Amino acid sequence: MNKEQQHEEWLKRRRERRQELTPERLFSGIKNQEMPMLSAAITLVESKLESDRKKAEELIRLCLPYSGNSIRIGITGVPGVGKSTFIETFGQLMLKQGKKVAILAIDPSSGTTGGSILGDKTRMEQLSVLDNVFIRPSAAGDTLGGVARKTRESIYLCEAAGFDFVLVETVGVGQSETLVHSMVDFFLLLMLSGAGDELQGIKRGIMEMADALVITKADGDNIKKANLARREYQNAMHLFPPKKNDWIPTAMICSSVSNTNMDQIWETISSFENKTKLNGHFELNRKEQDKFWLRETLNEQILRSFYSNEQLLQEMKVLDQQVIAGKESSFSAAEKLYLLYIQQLKENGTV
Amino acid sequence: MNKEQQHEEWLKRRRERRQELTPERLFSGIKNQEMPMLSAAITLVESKLESDRKKAEELIRLCLPYSGNSIRIGITGVPGVGKSTFIETFGQLMLKQGKKVAILAIDPSSGTTGGSILGDKTRMEQLSVLDNVFIRPSAAGDTLGGVARKTRESIYLCEAAGFDFVLVETVGVGQSETLVHSMVDFFLLLMLSGAGDELQGIKRGIMEMADALVITKADGDNIKKANLARREYQNAMHLFPPKKNDWIPTAMICSSVSNTNMDQIWETISSFENKTKLNGHFELNRKEQDKFWLRETLNEQILRSFYSNEQLLQEMKVLDQQVIAGKESSFSAAEKLYLLYIQQLKENGTV
Repeated sequence: MNKEQQHEEWLKRRRERRQELTPERLFSGIKNQEMPMLSAAITLVESKLESDRKKAEELIRLCLPYSGNSIRIGITGVPGVGKSTFIETFGQLMLKQGKKVAILAIDPSSGTTGGSILGDKTRMEQLSVLDNVFIRPSAAGDTLGGVARKTRESIYLCEAAGFDFVLVETVGVGQSETLVHSMVDFFLLLMLSGAGDELQGIKRGIMEMADALVITKADGDNIKKANLARREYQNAMHLFPPKKNDWIPTAMICSSVSNTNMDQIWETISSFENKTKLNGHFELNRKEQDKFWLRETLNEQILRSFYSNEQLLQEMKVLDQQVIAGKESSFSAAEKLYLLYIQQLKENGTV
Repeated sequence: MNKEQQHEEWLKRRRERRQELTPERLFSGIKNQEMPMLSAAITLVESKLESDRKKAEELIRLCLPYSGNSIRIGITGVPGVGKSTFIETFGQLMLKQGKKVAILAIDPSSGTTGGSILGDKTRMEQLSVLDNVFIRPSAAGDTLGGVARKTRESIYLCEAAGFDFVLVETVGVGQSETLVHSMVDFFLLLMLSGAGDELQGIKRGIMEMADALVITKADGDNIKKANLARREYQNAMHLFPPKKNDWIPTAMICSSVSNTNMDQIWETISSFENKTKLNGHFELNRKEQDKFWLRETLNEQILRSFYSNEQLLQEMKVLDQQVIAGKESSFSAAEKLYLLYIQQLKENGTV
């Protein structure tokens, strides 16, 4: 067998192996907490192949009855705030409490620029070698909404695999925090002290979403500054309208290097869980999120039915030129494209 | 004739008067700079009636060749920053230069809450009684995207009516600034000094969009603080990536009460216009905006074709319950709704 034949053979075997991973096989692997199976399942969920999509849906349907039992925690903050170091330290505390921790990372930058904000910082070298930990960065090269949807599906898979906590990490720029917020139970905002708010890129909206705000790197000479910032943020948060779930967000300081206050953050999350499970808002929030994601997914799918059609995109290019030349308003051009879309659907039953 | 008959008669006459306002009649009124006709035209553009929509499109088609000749200026800032007072003072400076000024206000809050952030502050009592001024608040009770689209259409109408400047005012919270930014040539951000950035709700993204940043209320004891803030913001803005159009955004201070520095702002806008018209970016920006709005409008229309169908919405309610009960994932529910949507289109040629 020459090299080429060998390669052909290898590709064929890989295809076969992949075929063997039926939804049922993946599901039983997940249930048995086989991490390679969980990895393969997330790869399936992230795949863009139409045939994979069908299998992924079947897999999620199987996992659904076994999902929902984790505490989902969103962690956000600007690049440099120390998200990965925080998760390394905090994750180890969780493990010591006998909990299993899955970490999913959404990187909004990877799709459009090719580069990555999270980059290799998501490696979390200490944590990744331990048992009861699963770390997975997001798929790149897709729309933010698409990545977010897949992350949400991955949460289900992790839960079916028995993880007690699913941490969803994202960079606090752009819209990804809003999407992450809509798939977690508890939203943790990490901030630096003294960097100047305008440069931290923190929107009022994100601060309002936070269930807790933690000033990182509060060690050595930084402690005083961190405490000052903590007080300021605590005051600022008091001015926000009270949350529906009666939870009062707190500002804390912490240090991943000197391992300070991690227990306080842990207790805050536990107390949040207790309170909202008692007053019913834990469940209520999840139901609202379900409805939100139904609509998000639907909208994405409807729009994709237009934007995946070559003929319509071709016509759009022509109309772009008409609009630019001032021969047509962008509104009437949109109307024309819409009518074309409807006509295609009518004639072909598909686009 | 009894009261009821009188009322019937009045309604009939009103219908007839409205019918008489054909796109052609409105267009000639706009061209003759009849302000009541411009008002009626914007009302038509804002109307949700399908028949009005057709007339509005025809009207815009007529106006299009006469549009594009104004400088479109977006003005944003948090409630309380003094947008209306600023526009009152700045607008009068423009009038003194012999310019005609139209002011359109987008209020993102009016749709959802019923309340209004701009409220009656948009009255601008001094300005509104002068000649060569046209003031129009946005229509409420619609999606933000819808309001924005109509505002953009209204810009065309104002331009066909010969206005030299169209000011688009919006509140600097939520997403409305992004939409306004995508329909103006120059984007002006008003800010308060010393209020604390986190409370001003200013996102880094908005600061990056600004072509000029103006600290308002720089009078009396406030001047020193305003100057300090100005320097800080100027420094912060230097850290942003340079703009494609080679324009370097500046930070200024002003006072509407003592009428300070309005000329400086005026000169900044003039110099922006000169520079970007020379280097071609003025036109380029408008073309990019045209393409953006083609897509925005198209997406809105495609999604509306789903969300305006009673039967589909009914089915969505059913599936919501399934999802909430954990019998279905939000993703497979979305898939089902999507297939139903396609089927309806195929069978009826419409939804």
